[in-house]
Amino acid sequence: MSQTDGAQQNGHASKAELDANQGGNHNKKTYHKQATGLAWETVQAHSSDNDLKLYGSCFCPFVHRVWISLEHKGLDYQYVEVDVYRKPKLLLDINPRGLVPALRHGDWGCYESTVLMEYLEDLHQGKPLLPKDPKQRAESRLWSDHINRHIIPLFYRYLQAQDANDQASYAKELTEQIAKLVSAADSNGPFFLGSKLTFVDVQMAPWVIRLEKVLKPYRGWPDPEPGSRWEKWVRAIEANDAVKKTTSDDDLYLDSYERYAENRPNTSQVQAAINNGSGMP
Amino acid sequence: MSQTDGAQQNGHASKAELDANQGGNHNKKTYHKQATGLAWETVQAHSSDNDLKLYGSCFCPFVHRVWISLEHKGLDYQYVEVDVYRKPKLLLDINPRGLVPALRHGDWGCYESTVLMEYLEDLHQGKPLLPKDPKQRAESRLWSDHINRHIIPLFYRYLQAQDANDQASYAKELTEQIAKLVSAADSNGPFFLGSKLTFVDVQMAPWVIRLEKVLKPYRGWPDPEPGSRWEKWVRAIEANDAVKKTTSDDDLYLDSYERYAENRPNTSQVQAAINNGSGMP
Repeated sequence: MSQTDGAQQNGHASKAELDANQGGNHNKKTYHKQATGLAWETVQAHSSDNDLKLYGSCFCPFVHRVWISLEHKGLDYQYVEVDVYRKPKLLLDINPRGLVPALRHGDWGCYESTVLMEYLEDLHQGKPLLPKDPKQRAESRLWSDHINRHIIPLFYRYLQAQDANDQASYAKELTEQIAKLVSAADSNGPFFLGSKLTFVDVQMAPWVIRLEKVLKPYRGWPDPEPGSRWEKWVRAIEANDAVKKTTSDDDLYLDSYERYAENRPNTSQVQAAINNGSGMP
Repeated sequence: MSQTDGAQQNGHASKAELDANQGGNHNKKTYHKQATGLAWETVQAHSSDNDLKLYGSCFCPFVHRVWISLEHKGLDYQYVEVDVYRKPKLLLDINPRGLVPALRHGDWGCYESTVLMEYLEDLHQGKPLLPKDPKQRAESRLWSDHINRHIIPLFYRYLQAQDANDQASYAKELTEQIAKLVSAADSNGPFFLGSKLTFVDVQMAPWVIRLEKVLKPYRGWPDPEPGSRWEKWVRAIEANDAVKKTTSDDDLYLDSYERYAENRPNTSQVQAAINNGSGMP
C-alpha cells in the first residue's frame, strides 16, 4: 500500500483532491477557506473553545441553516471552519466521511442539517424555531421536506446544467416548486408562519440568499415580482439579523459556486449526485 | 374539454389508469383493495367513525409505518382503506394528489409518513416512540434519514431491475446500506435503541417485512445469517404486536409487488421516480 493510499484511508485527501481549483482555471479564485463580511465578524466572536461546536464551511448552505439557528437562538457555541482538505480529528470522530455541517456537543456528535436543527430545538434553550402546536409543527416538517426533496436538487440541477434547453426547463420547474411553497405560507407573512422567523424560513434561507447571489449572476434568475408574497418573504429573510450575521460578502458566493456553474469534475458530492441521478449525499 | 379531462382534473383516474392490472397479465391477481389476515381484523376493529383517520392502502409500506405507530401507541383511530382509483373527498381535501398515508385529525390533515410519525409523537398520547434524550432523538432522526435516502430507493431499484448484473449490484449496495444501519444499532438489542420498539424500528419495519415477503421470493434475498445482530433485529420486529396486527397474509404482498418485480409501466409514482432517476415522490 502506497503512502497516498494510506492517507486516503485515514480520511485525508489525495493529491488529485488537493487541487484547490478543482479542475478549473488556476488563475481564478474558487475556494474560500474563511468567511468574509458580517459572517467573519461572527466567526471571530465565536472562536473560543466551547462544549458546543459547529463544524462548517463558509460557503455551504447546509451549514448556513445550522448557523442561522444557533444565532437565532442566541446559544453559546464555537464555530470551527473546516478545510475540506484537512479535516480535524474531532470532526472525523463524529463522521468518518467528514461531512459538514456537524455538531459536537461534549463527547457526542451528529450531522445532517435538518437533524441538527431538530436537535437544537430539543435542547429547549433560547428562542424556539418550531411552534408549539402539533399541527403547525407537522406543517413545518412537511414543507421542510418539500424544500429538501423538491427545491434543493433543482437548484443544483439548474446551476450545473450547461445546455440552454435544460437550463430553461429546470428554471421553470424550480419556479413551480417555489410557488407551491409560497402558496402554503401564511398569506400575510412576511415569514412562512407569520410575523416571526421559524423552522421553514431557516430551512429555505440559505437558498434564498443563493438565488440572489449565485443563480442570478450565473443563470439570470429574476428578482421577485414587486409586491408579490414571494418578494415579501425574500426581503424579510434577507433583513433577518441571524441571516445577516451568518452571510458573507457577495464575492465569496460568486467565487465558490463558479465550479458548480461550470460543472467541473470533483466539485462536490452534491454535484456528483446530481450528475449521476442518485439521491443527495 | 372532454369528460375524461374533467375527471382527471378533479383528481379522478383516467381509463388508462383504471387498468387494475396496470399493464400486466389480466389473468393474474395484482391489486388488493382490502387487508387480509391479522391486518384485516385490525381494520374491522377500527372501522367506526373517528376524529383521527388514517387513509391507507393495505400493501403500502409508508402507510404501514403510520399504522404500526397508531397501534403501538394504542390510540383511538379510524382506518380508511383508499381505493387508488376512487379517492374519498376527505383525503383529496388534505392533498389534491391523494397520496397515502394521510392523516385527518378533525378538520385538519397532513401527509408524508415520517412527518405523520412525528405528529403522533407531538400529541403526547400513548406510548412514545422517540426517546426523551435529545442526543438519542437526533440519532433516531439521523438513521431514519439513512433509511429514507439510502435503503428504500435501493429496495425499489433492486426489485424493479430486470438485468441480472444490475440486480447483483443493487443487492450488494442494499446489503451494505443495511449493514451500516445495523452497525449503528445498540449492540445487545434486539431493537435499534435496545429492549423497546422505537422510532427507527418502525421506520424500518415495513421493509423488514417486505425483504422477507417480496424480495426473497422475487429476487432470492437471503435469510439473515443465524446468530447475527441483523437476525436478532428482524425476529424482534416480526414478533412485535403492533407489526403483526398491521401485517396481511403473505399472498397480499406477493401479488401487490408482482407489478414492481416485472417493472410494468404505470405501477406507481415510486416506481416511475426510480426508473427516471428523480427523487422519491
